[in-house]
Amino acid sequence: MARIVMKFGGTSMAGIERIRGAADRVRREVANGNEVAVVVSAMAGETDRLVGFCREASPLADRAEYDVVVASGEQVTAGLLAIALQAAGTPARSWLGWQLPVSTSDAHASARIKGIDTDAMAASMAAGTVAVMPGFQGISPDGRVTTLGRGGSDTSAVALAAALKADRCDIYTDVDGVYTTDPRIVPRARKLAMITYEEMLELASVGAKVLQTRSVELAMKEKVRVRVLSSFNDGPGTLVVDEDEIVEQELIAGVAYNRNEAKITVGGVPDRPGVVAAIFGPLAEANVNVDMIVQNIAYVAGTTDVTFTVPRTELTLSESVLAKMKDSIGYASVTSDPAVAKISVVGVGMRSHAGVAVTMFKALADRGINIQAITTSEIKVSVLIAEEYTELAVRVLHTAYGLDA
Amino acid sequence: MARIVMKFGGTSMAGIERIRGAADRVRREVANGNEVAVVVSAMAGETDRLVGFCREASPLADRAEYDVVVASGEQVTAGLLAIALQAAGTPARSWLGWQLPVSTSDAHASARIKGIDTDAMAASMAAGTVAVMPGFQGISPDGRVTTLGRGGSDTSAVALAAALKADRCDIYTDVDGVYTTDPRIVPRARKLAMITYEEMLELASVGAKVLQTRSVELAMKEKVRVRVLSSFNDGPGTLVVDEDEIVEQELIAGVAYNRNEAKITVGGVPDRPGVVAAIFGPLAEANVNVDMIVQNIAYVAGTTDVTFTVPRTELTLSESVLAKMKDSIGYASVTSDPAVAKISVVGVGMRSHAGVAVTMFKALADRGINIQAITTSEIKVSVLIAEEYTELAVRVLHTAYGLDA
Repeated sequence: MARIVMKFGGTSMAGIERIRGAADRVRREVANGNEVAVVVSAMAGETDRLVGFCREASPLADRAEYDVVVASGEQVTAGLLAIALQAAGTPARSWLGWQLPVSTSDAHASARIKGIDTDAMAASMAAGTVAVMPGFQGISPDGRVTTLGRGGSDTSAVALAAALKADRCDIYTDVDGVYTTDPRIVPRARKLAMITYEEMLELASVGAKVLQTRSVELAMKEKVRVRVLSSFNDGPGTLVVDEDEIVEQELIAGVAYNRNEAKITVGGVPDRPGVVAAIFGPLAEANVNVDMIVQNIAYVAGTTDVTFTVPRTELTLSESVLAKMKDSIGYASVTSDPAVAKISVVGVGMRSHAGVAVTMFKALADRGINIQAITTSEIKVSVLIAEEYTELAVRVLHTAYGLDA
Repeated sequence: MARIVMKFGGTSMAGIERIRGAADRVRREVANGNEVAVVVSAMAGETDRLVGFCREASPLADRAEYDVVVASGEQVTAGLLAIALQAAGTPARSWLGWQLPVSTSDAHASARIKGIDTDAMAASMAAGTVAVMPGFQGISPDGRVTTLGRGGSDTSAVALAAALKADRCDIYTDVDGVYTTDPRIVPRARKLAMITYEEMLELASVGAKVLQTRSVELAMKEKVRVRVLSSFNDGPGTLVVDEDEIVEQELIAGVAYNRNEAKITVGGVPDRPGVVAAIFGPLAEANVNVDMIVQNIAYVAGTTDVTFTVPRTELTLSESVLAKMKDSIGYASVTSDPAVAKISVVGVGMRSHAGVAVTMFKALADRGINIQAITTSEIKVSVLIAEEYTELAVRVLHTAYGLDA
């Protein structure tokens, strides 16, 4: 017997037929002798509908009331899944965020889970009743409804698995696992049987949208074994686990791409101490999330060029922040290019193998793809290239690292 | 300064534009120096949508989980109205059923309010914040979500007004008050400035769907002054109050009709003690709500006919219950007629005036309308007639009692 948390996303909750399908999967786990808690998202599209109401009521809706409105979507699916389970002969009941409670910070619309009191739920599960918990929602220290931010149900599931000391947290989604890269670009991409938390985190941070980043961070911290698998077909999915659990480590786990950044170059910046802080301080104050940064060698004596990337949606904001600082910094020019892509290779094997980055640079150079910026972490190398080369670069690297099926 | 509870129905919450309209009415009461609590229904159609999901998931959905699902509709509008009020510069916050709490019985889907803890809400109102409470919902003794049954938000509003010792409970709806009869049948129907609780109750029980019956019972018990008025145009509406408050009492407050009953006649029933109990006992056990009952004089020595009405939706059920009892009772025949209508005149003035019923019988007889059954209460006379005469009977009685504008 194992204790399992199962999480179903919005597409798995889109309508009663699909909810019945999810109930069926839960029933099978119960039939295998497992104790099961289920975490559900709202029906696909429902959170958008509710967010739309709030925005229509006020573009600057009070976040506490926004949470009251948007948390209702998961309450509906939690009740419906409990009904569907009962109809199939499986005892089940819902546990709402305030009932357990799921204690969170008071940062409405982006609250953090502080703890989940699972005593009553665990007793009910031990007595043979499936527990159904709406994801995304919690309760603040002063007793008001909170939500965790978009995609927060993954985090709810991992937090519940940690609190219940569950043997596994199964995330049912519309893909059947984590792939070495996007199969739409590389048909020969392989599904990974296992991946480490750190690799999953790095892949999520560079655009692979399988799991919410915070849920992976939490799983890593709490050592929750997470499995990503499909709601719509059977298959083992991908297990996200600690590095120790992976016996034969591959050099590279995957290749990811991100087309959501834009490049800005501030030219003719006076080459004096503090000037970089003068550029990035005001951007941080404007909540612009600067990613890659490259400071070029000065071509003109006493000046330098600074190139960096920002989210494409914040390009206009960034340019207006920079325009205001023209006199105080004394730069010569600002140029920008939204048509860039960040390509990343991720793998814990990098730690013990030299030459991983060189393979990347060489493979891209062989195809005439120019690298505009580079960043590295312990287990990731990312390069910025012209957007039009995205698919080519992904395919070339997938082959270069021997990932093709 | 007064303390006022305002209640908005589903049509007043149907979309953000209407919610803004409701916020506008609230704002005006606040501007008049009043402390305001608001009770809201779900958006028109939303409860039906949620009930539909539950039925689709299971025709016999667990009522506790049904309540989890359907209570969400009012949570959404409570949050949205609070947002709309804030956007208009009026401080406001929502108070959900479990937050106050609104304590109810554990009869899920038809719970009764036992009490509302308004301490925190009243303090917040005194500090200038409008309180917004979702109607229809509460919390059971074991901490689960309950709902009050369809139309329960009127009862929520009256219960909140009683708990807050409010000066008035204003029910905003899609009609502009209580009329002497249905204006679609009698264009010269008059809007009543005032009506007593008891008259309102009797009118509600015979088909005038302005207020939920339970809300009127509660208002009468708790002496809550209720006002019925329109969300969509200005006007004083109708005040529902204690009899003492009405100085000049009319003889008849209104004429109502109900086409939802069907007539059953059990013929040739042995005329012996206990036979009537033998008929109505099993019907009561089958939850059939028998209304009017007439026992005719025996035409054949030793036998009698029993005629009664049941809700039209329960006619088939009633007939099958009666069929099972044919041998044990030994009746000769069962005949039924769904094409009947119950016409009622209601007024507390009846108590002190003789001849009210005679006026009714005479007016109907003058038009050749045959009376099939009669029931009376202290302040109501109802007759059963052929359905095709419904409109004619209503018009004739409206004139006969001098109600025409």
